[in-house]
Amino acid sequence: MLDWARAARTGTSEAVLCEPKSAAQVDAIVSEALALGRRLLFTRLSPRQHKALSAPSRSALDYDAQTRTAILGGLPPERRAGRVAIVCAGTSDLPVAREAERTLAFAGETATLFADVGVAGLWRLMDRIDEIRRHRVAIAVAGMEGALFSVLAGLVPCAVVAVPTSIGYGVGRGGRAALHAALASCSSGLVATNIDNGFGAAHAALRVLGEPAPSLDAEASR
Amino acid sequence: MLDWARAARTGTSEAVLCEPKSAAQVDAIVSEALALGRRLLFTRLSPRQHKALSAPSRSALDYDAQTRTAILGGLPPERRAGRVAIVCAGTSDLPVAREAERTLAFAGETATLFADVGVAGLWRLMDRIDEIRRHRVAIAVAGMEGALFSVLAGLVPCAVVAVPTSIGYGVGRGGRAALHAALASCSSGLVATNIDNGFGAAHAALRVLGEPAPSLDAEASR
Amino acid sequence: MLDWARAARTGTSEAVLCEPKSAAQVDAIVSEALALGRRLLFTRLSPRQHKALSAPSRSALDYDAQTRTAILGGLPPERRAGRVAIVCAGTSDLPVAREAERTLAFAGETATLFADVGVAGLWRLMDRIDEIRRHRVAIAVAGMEGALFSVLAGLVPCAVVAVPTSIGYGVGRGGRAALHAALASCSSGLVATNIDNGFGAAHAALRVLGEPAPSLDAEASR
Amino acid sequence: MLDWARAARTGTSEAVLCEPKSAAQVDAIVSEALALGRRLLFTRLSPRQHKALSAPSRSALDYDAQTRTAILGGLPPERRAGRVAIVCAGTSDLPVAREAERTLAFAGETATLFADVGVAGLWRLMDRIDEIRRHRVAIAVAGMEGALFSVLAGLVPCAVVAVPTSIGYGVGRGGRAALHAALASCSSGLVATNIDNGFGAAHAALRVLGEPAPSLDAEASR
Amino acid sequence: MLDWARAARTGTSEAVLCEPKSAAQVDAIVSEALALGRRLLFTRLSPRQHKALSAPSRSALDYDAQTRTAILGGLPPERRAGRVAIVCAGTSDLPVAREAERTLAFAGETATLFADVGVAGLWRLMDRIDEIRRHRVAIAVAGMEGALFSVLAGLVPCAVVAVPTSIGYGVGRGGRAALHAALASCSSGLVATNIDNGFGAAHAALRVLGEPAPSLDAEASR
Amino acid sequence: MLDWARAARTGTSEAVLCEPKSAAQVDAIVSEALALGRRLLFTRLSPRQHKALSAPSRSALDYDAQTRTAILGGLPPERRAGRVAIVCAGTSDLPVAREAERTLAFAGETATLFADVGVAGLWRLMDRIDEIRRHRVAIAVAGMEGALFSVLAGLVPCAVVAVPTSIGYGVGRGGRAALHAALASCSSGLVATNIDNGFGAAHAALRVLGEPAPSLDAEASR
Amino acid sequence: MLDWARAARTGTSEAVLCEPKSAAQVDAIVSEALALGRRLLFTRLSPRQHKALSAPSRSALDYDAQTRTAILGGLPPERRAGRVAIVCAGTSDLPVAREAERTLAFAGETATLFADVGVAGLWRLMDRIDEIRRHRVAIAVAGMEGALFSVLAGLVPCAVVAVPTSIGYGVGRGGRAALHAALASCSSGLVATNIDNGFGAAHAALRVLGEPAPSLDAEASR
Amino acid sequence: MLDWARAARTGTSEAVLCEPKSAAQVDAIVSEALALGRRLLFTRLSPRQHKALSAPSRSALDYDAQTRTAILGGLPPERRAGRVAIVCAGTSDLPVAREAERTLAFAGETATLFADVGVAGLWRLMDRIDEIRRHRVAIAVAGMEGALFSVLAGLVPCAVVAVPTSIGYGVGRGGRAALHAALASCSSGLVATNIDNGFGAAHAALRVLGEPAPSLDAEASR
Repeated sequence: MLDWARAARTGTSEAVLCEPKSAAQVDAIVSEALALGRRLLFTRLSPRQHKALSAPSRSALDYDAQTRTAILGGLPPERRAGRVAIVCAGTSDLPVAREAERTLAFAGETATLFADVGVAGLWRLMDRIDEIRRHRVAIAVAGMEGALFSVLAGLVPCAVVAVPTSIGYGVGRGGRAALHAALASCSSGLVATNIDNGFGAAHAALRVLGEPAPSLDAEASR
Repeated sequence: MLDWARAARTGTSEAVLCEPKSAAQVDAIVSEALALGRRLLFTRLSPRQHKALSAPSRSALDYDAQTRTAILGGLPPERRAGRVAIVCAGTSDLPVAREAERTLAFAGETATLFADVGVAGLWRLMDRIDEIRRHRVAIAVAGMEGALFSVLAGLVPCAVVAVPTSIGYGVGRGGRAALHAALASCSSGLVATNIDNGFGAAHAALRVLGEPAPSLDAEASR
Repeated sequence: MLDWARAARTGTSEAVLCEPKSAAQVDAIVSEALALGRRLLFTRLSPRQHKALSAPSRSALDYDAQTRTAILGGLPPERRAGRVAIVCAGTSDLPVAREAERTLAFAGETATLFADVGVAGLWRLMDRIDEIRRHRVAIAVAGMEGALFSVLAGLVPCAVVAVPTSIGYGVGRGGRAALHAALASCSSGLVATNIDNGFGAAHAALRVLGEPAPSLDAEASR
Repeated sequence: MLDWARAARTGTSEAVLCEPKSAAQVDAIVSEALALGRRLLFTRLSPRQHKALSAPSRSALDYDAQTRTAILGGLPPERRAGRVAIVCAGTSDLPVAREAERTLAFAGETATLFADVGVAGLWRLMDRIDEIRRHRVAIAVAGMEGALFSVLAGLVPCAVVAVPTSIGYGVGRGGRAALHAALASCSSGLVATNIDNGFGAAHAALRVLGEPAPSLDAEASR
Repeated sequence: MLDWARAARTGTSEAVLCEPKSAAQVDAIVSEALALGRRLLFTRLSPRQHKALSAPSRSALDYDAQTRTAILGGLPPERRAGRVAIVCAGTSDLPVAREAERTLAFAGETATLFADVGVAGLWRLMDRIDEIRRHRVAIAVAGMEGALFSVLAGLVPCAVVAVPTSIGYGVGRGGRAALHAALASCSSGLVATNIDNGFGAAHAALRVLGEPAPSLDAEASR
Repeated sequence: MLDWARAARTGTSEAVLCEPKSAAQVDAIVSEALALGRRLLFTRLSPRQHKALSAPSRSALDYDAQTRTAILGGLPPERRAGRVAIVCAGTSDLPVAREAERTLAFAGETATLFADVGVAGLWRLMDRIDEIRRHRVAIAVAGMEGALFSVLAGLVPCAVVAVPTSIGYGVGRGGRAALHAALASCSSGLVATNIDNGFGAAHAALRVLGEPAPSLDAEASR
Repeated sequence: MLDWARAARTGTSEAVLCEPKSAAQVDAIVSEALALGRRLLFTRLSPRQHKALSAPSRSALDYDAQTRTAILGGLPPERRAGRVAIVCAGTSDLPVAREAERTLAFAGETATLFADVGVAGLWRLMDRIDEIRRHRVAIAVAGMEGALFSVLAGLVPCAVVAVPTSIGYGVGRGGRAALHAALASCSSGLVATNIDNGFGAAHAALRVLGEPAPSLDAEASR
Repeated sequence: MLDWARAARTGTSEAVLCEPKSAAQVDAIVSEALALGRRLLFTRLSPRQHKALSAPSRSALDYDAQTRTAILGGLPPERRAGRVAIVCAGTSDLPVAREAERTLAFAGETATLFADVGVAGLWRLMDRIDEIRRHRVAIAVAGMEGALFSVLAGLVPCAVVAVPTSIGYGVGRGGRAALHAALASCSSGLVATNIDNGFGAAHAALRVLGEPAPSLDAEASR
């Protein structure tokens, strides 16, 4: 049973972490939400899990395989834009960046995505930095050595949320190198989420904006 | 030479990380700032370093040994209050919490400090949670296992910045356990700074509020 | 050959760790136990391993795929209840919680399971805390950041055995973050087992209650 | 201010972790407890800290340098014995073993100490194993490779709490090897505390016995 | 091309590490050895790799799937026995123990295998300790917490070579806990090989006995 | 879109890291390059990925499965030789060594490959050391314990770039042991790349030679 | 006895690592070199060690406390310049940068030092990048998150040797974060030395330039 | 009380690990041994501890500050030689090498010490390899990257015991890099002790030779 009382208590709606759930469990949550007329965001729902869902669940969900997210009940009719920039270092980091983008969209916030602006080609970032600066929050997504975090935070005054990704090999495998780069940054006032946590970064951005956010609750259902 | 041009570029004033600097280097920065009539924040200035400064530097600086910070030029005459809560788990975590408080004060923001509200005595936190919820940003400071971060983020809707501290022993020594607790939290939308980085958390809070913040720049002087 | 003399020496019956065993080895143990009329608990028997067992073994075993346990010879006719609480943070942690529950049942102890009481929604735990306090031992099962351990141990006076699970990603992957949270806890008198060790926690609870427990012996057969 | 309400809530008295406190803070706690006529246990009070206390504090405290503990108000007049065995591998592990012993004594429990029974000379342990088996809880204290934990837990049916110590060098430095030996043990039903946490093990033993225990609360005073 | 000159230089014959080799590469080595009439030991040859070999290779090799070793040219006609004991903690550790046994047999040394003598059931080891003591070298094979190493080395005067295995989960996964137990042992004069290195331990035993040993040379072929 | 302007800026051509890209993305890059008449190097293109490419892509690419590299547009007509030595410890390290060789060939540099010269058979290295010394750069490729790096750097005066490989097991798994051997070497003036980074070592050699090198840019395409 | 034959063999002169040596050992090396009329470089000679040297040694040595280096016999009369750039992120990294500079000077190479060009203030680096590009080798020195390495290697075509420093705290303590940033860099062709190894980077630069370099040999004296 | 019965049981005499003992404890052991007329070896007795001993203890002990060992009762009158070679990479590793030498001497075995034969100057090792080969056991002592272990084991057929030392900095600090080099070696049949464990290596050599060895027993006294 989902904790439908949460919204009342913390001003947020619920999100469902699907990775450790069976298809039957996800189906049950979809049914219950449909019956109650609730919107829901599902995260870390793999293509294989999605394929195993019942036909009604599949037709009710707007599924995106790249980000492994599904939305039930559509996006809010009214949306704000121009407040959150998502700055993404490389192609490989896009799934995480887009998970953040989808989470924000679900909450009614249209983010601006800046892709392929890693520091190996600094001029690509510099060309767009003025545009990025106009946002209230910047979500920076990078794997490997995560140098983007420091460079970006040194150039913009707004809140910067670093999302290290698990892209990399050797000492970069798993994302620890990028995470440590964010935390040990010489640019001050930078904060970080867990590795690959695009959902969490979006939620953090919504907290910054003072907006009710979907809360990803690992304990949300039985 | 300090990078006095920074404020113009990023809207922030400069802060000086003193740990790796000699007394002579700090004295030179104080003199230069006095000559230019600039305010400055000094961080990680140990009592031993402070004692080694020249008499003029010492009389010009408002030094606080617990937080190892010094302020040159006093606090801003106008200050905002009630927007940042600092929630501190235990007595041992106070120096880090107060480093954040001093940094915010230097930037004109009066924070509210909630001390001794660790989760081992959950009722102490619950007694004050309504008061904490009224702030726009909560800086949570905790060492050992860092359970405070998840509990707090699950109870308030505002931006929560976790500052893990190095307080602990055994597997808790050095602060990694508390840091990982913040990053792996089951409460979503929580972000973290490096271990013991009260300054960084304050700067992050100022970025959230949209206020120009002092930037701690390790490369700021020669 | 199983060490049937163990019960005589340590007052416990034997359990069989199946993960590193072949189907033939497990079949042989089942046959031998059937011939001797002994009850046995099998742990970490994967569905694939179970499927590879001989037909007689399969029909003799009461197998549970979620917990990967099988019971030979049924549960004891007389069972005690109300002495062990199993407190489980999230849906993903249930397999480990239920492995503990099955192990206790095999030893004649009916545990009370409290599911979905993680700290991200603290009210769910608080609603049931008085009920939990009535037990003599609480087994707490949580992954990710493991904040449940400290919160629970700060609220109940009984023995608390923390079982960190491997649920999590990024810095939480593999369960180290949750394990360290249990060990570095600011709530005192908390003890921990290895990651995902629901069987061990049940055995520890039985030691606390002074009951003979099934002993999982990795060297038990040839 | 100490949380004097704790005893009422959790049935435990308070203990004071002194390591991160100043002499003035400890003096204040002593004064307050004396005024209220409360008994108190102080842990991790180094000889240097103890020397810096005020004369009244020093004369009021029963201080033990080896275990870095101090007791205010003496031991309880009535004490139980024979229920907790403390099994200590080597001379170097004695300070941790004796911290557990003092904590138990403060709570009215007289433990039996078995010293110098490490596995390098297995006959020493075997000579005393029957005596150890008569206790309801065994606290095992060992550093280096921590082999004592598995050997002991394989020989006694009672609750076994492993306390790894930081004694060792090379891969044994800091106590991780001993901690992992306790957690990965092939003897089942063994539980562990943090490295060097003799206080915590004693508290765990009291939880097992169903006795109110002193709670070491890092957040206990201001 | 194998380095056939090695035997002349170091008094050892050659062994072939197959894990990183293709079937074609192994086939070529077999052909060359057959043509030269040389005996060869092949290690870490998986069943899948073995199945992919040419028919002539397969019929020429004496393959053992459990240990993933193959012998070309049979065992030496004259063999010594009673000098090397292989002491194995549990069933799961047997493949590594038997890799050592096969390597010794290839070199003309018949080892005595002591299985299922882990410390969780100490009486099993004690029953056989006098027999083990009669050997000149003892190879101890154990995973999980590796307590067997210290117990054994404390009871026998001969050379003891510890082979930690990767058997275990949680903090025991991969074998680091067992390895550190061997290295940090309180029993002195114990030495260790890499995790799962049964071949290496056999070679070390042969070095102790002063016998020419097969040398596993990762760079042996092109 | 590839960053075709890069060559103009840094004097290098572009290389494409394929591991995180879909077949469609790689196909698009191939088409675009064909249309523009550009040469391109593709790295970490697995056989499975290669098989999934479109027929035109497959026929345009010169693919090498062992090194997982593909070349579009052939090698440069004029090539330099005798300046870069690639010194490879064992058979298992060859794929990484050959990735370096292919990268150099793509840039017009024919390297000399010295295979099977690991330190377990030191005479093999010594036999060829005079030949190696004649090159301006030596790329040393080794896994396991990486002793080759120190031995080689102590014997030749030229630039030595160590490429640790992930070949190994136990403490050698993943390549950290070999990497640390390179970095902590007692032979001075040795430098290292990330684990398994044959491409990077080749690029480093080209930087040493002052030649334009293909730049592997993770952010190179959309 | 120093290995005076080394120069003849590898074309390099000798350097002496002083950290683990006694004053008497260093004095003996100085005497011997004076007697032979040899120039020598001494590294990691702490001020305390230097103070303990004999008067003749002290007067013969040109000692620099910041870099802990001493030069015997002066610099070479002829020196090359403009080939090696040393790019240093922050004030705290200067001792390592200057150790490289002194080592190069001892070998007759005058390096150009670019200080205070860390990425937190990217404009400072950009202002000087054209000047840096004119060198054949760039030694980049940075601690904390080491973002400078990637930014610099993306902007210059020459050989780039990264020297991570141990400057930092929390996850940055000890220099692993900076080291991993260099190794996992998204800018290709970058190589790294051990943490704080300014001497090694200078030696690597000399290898690149094809110049005989002083070899720091830990085994150089008795 | 020392375990004087040990010699009878395991054929070894006792050694005393002094690091964690007080001066009074060591004095008591010396007195007892003098009274019983026993010889004893004391290890890890720091100069500061030695200075704190009573005058009678100090005059009875033959103390060596470099190795931190003391011998009571002199060396055995009859000694064997030429069976154990100690091969030491660098000056900094000598204290560990000489601890092994002293331990062997105490047991009546005169070892041959080969100093300054690290692989950075391979010719020094090659010059002496024939002499080393004549011994039955070689103890190899090296820090930093530990390349000596593989090179030596590839050149001699006898038993090789690697003792990694804690000499090194950066990734080499503490000795893990050298330890892993020994364990992951491409030269087979090599075994290792804990970091800096010269005593243990000597004991292992005595086990190889079949001689009663002093046993370092951390639990030996009260």
